[in-house]
Amino acid sequence: MKNIVVIGEVLAEILADAPGMGFLEPIALTGPFPSGAPAIFADQAARMGHASAVISAVGDDDFGRQALERLSRDGVDVSGVAIAPGHPTATAFVRYRTDGARDFIFNIRHSACGLPPDKAKAQPVLDRAGHLHVMGSSLSSPDLIAFNLAAARAVKARGGTVSFDPNLRKEMLASPGIGEAMEAVLGLADLFLPSGDELFLFTRAKKPRQAVDELFGRGVCAIVHKLGAEGVRHYDREGSQFVPAFDVEEIDPTGAGDCFGAAFTVLWLQGAPTREALIMAAAAGAIAVGKRGPMEGTSSRSDLRAFLAARGMENP
Amino acid sequence: MKNIVVIGEVLAEILADAPGMGFLEPIALTGPFPSGAPAIFADQAARMGHASAVISAVGDDDFGRQALERLSRDGVDVSGVAIAPGHPTATAFVRYRTDGARDFIFNIRHSACGLPPDKAKAQPVLDRAGHLHVMGSSLSSPDLIAFNLAAARAVKARGGTVSFDPNLRKEMLASPGIGEAMEAVLGLADLFLPSGDELFLFTRAKKPRQAVDELFGRGVCAIVHKLGAEGVRHYDREGSQFVPAFDVEEIDPTGAGDCFGAAFTVLWLQGAPTREALIMAAAAGAIAVGKRGPMEGTSSRSDLRAFLAARGMENP
Repeated sequence: MKNIVVIGEVLAEILADAPGMGFLEPIALTGPFPSGAPAIFADQAARMGHASAVISAVGDDDFGRQALERLSRDGVDVSGVAIAPGHPTATAFVRYRTDGARDFIFNIRHSACGLPPDKAKAQPVLDRAGHLHVMGSSLSSPDLIAFNLAAARAVKARGGTVSFDPNLRKEMLASPGIGEAMEAVLGLADLFLPSGDELFLFTRAKKPRQAVDELFGRGVCAIVHKLGAEGVRHYDREGSQFVPAFDVEEIDPTGAGDCFGAAFTVLWLQGAPTREALIMAAAAGAIAVGKRGPMEGTSSRSDLRAFLAARGMENP
Repeated sequence: MKNIVVIGEVLAEILADAPGMGFLEPIALTGPFPSGAPAIFADQAARMGHASAVISAVGDDDFGRQALERLSRDGVDVSGVAIAPGHPTATAFVRYRTDGARDFIFNIRHSACGLPPDKAKAQPVLDRAGHLHVMGSSLSSPDLIAFNLAAARAVKARGGTVSFDPNLRKEMLASPGIGEAMEAVLGLADLFLPSGDELFLFTRAKKPRQAVDELFGRGVCAIVHKLGAEGVRHYDREGSQFVPAFDVEEIDPTGAGDCFGAAFTVLWLQGAPTREALIMAAAAGAIAVGKRGPMEGTSSRSDLRAFLAARGMENP
């Protein structure tokens, strides 16, 4: 069974209690919640019993301790997470607007996990990696780009696999070399997990079917196109299928895409039938959407089965 | 009238709602509150109608915008505050313990205001400075040390004055050169505002009277020794006097020492009788202690007079 490694930000998230615009006055907040897309992905994989590790750095502070404690408890290998004294753990303040959009204040680039990776801590973990998941949101510096690319090439060279979620944030588009970096990662990816218009990030075609063919031509063998509250469409060389999202009350969608992606990646690595993997992953996303806090909604296999059973789907 | 300039951190403070230990689980918080000892000092001075300016940097984010808006509204000259895109505004998470001690998570050194000062923005403000207040907590990097020292020397060279609050935080003692920097600032200070054992930071003597004489020998001409909830003792070459603190309910003592120090410094610069200045400053501290949020309790002259009148002290 190929274990999963993810390189990138581990952070503390502070959530505004009430929707509204920005952070311009004292408001009620709740936090810290452990967060970071790579951390959530690794946590969801571990909670499903799949070996996973995250490579990152946190500060020598309560935010870092909380995140590492949670990840460890859930079974994530955190031996590749450095403690960077003097640098703070990354933070994200998140406030939902009334229309569902979000305002953020991030401190990632100048936090512990924005430092050049601690290769001595990371290398033993990378040497054991069977599968690398690359989060586009983690390609936030030339160091992190080079590190992710080297890891992806090494994993592929020994017969491992790579998945890629562009997870594009508008704040990142100004990062130097981000476009070329994303292209290079795509060229190494076996499984591609774009959301919405990210399907067309690397294609000339602007229609899904043609875009998918272009992506297959570049070596991708499976694509899961995430369409938010609608559902997902899966493509491989055998065809395409759509699975609708579950209709659940949306409490906090942050992290739901990462839970979906991790659950699908785990089942894909384990050779589960595609439809079953998509439905289980949709359940993981739905459970995550219903819990407040980005990593509070990760789910075990029995959580997923219970969720499906409650909807009359004992055997997805 | 000598205007006051303070160089140092402007930050966003996030306060835990309930006392307890640290930040290891999601808890109720309130913020952002504008904060930073130099900012609070400048704000208190401005609210008393005294010209004041702060020299700092904030990020291009809501935390920075909130702080600058507040300072400007209260009359502080913020033309020397740079906006550092890509760097976050400094933050401090503060939680009171049940015994009144505080747990902090700071991000200052790697925030906007930890960058080397933007001299182009600062110089015009420094060139107009009649009085420089040095906060020891702001001597957090070799750049900030050199900048504060150069400013203090320039102000003194043109007949201005310097006040100095060591405001020592244990987190800072590891900073390179902090001891020598504090000694150099003391050598330039006219007014010294130590708290508790800080009175002995620079002296061989370990008893107040002898320590005070040593400090006079080094050029200090007035000392206000802050004794927390007890009160303050003032020393100059004419003698010494004690003024007790007002007995008020302690809601949030953060910032109270800065409000006290600024109120006293303003009145000292204006040549007010020492006893009146001490009582007005004690009122400023008491008002600050009674308000939640570090800068929420700054007070105008009429606030101070009303506070004193309510205690039968029309003419302190």
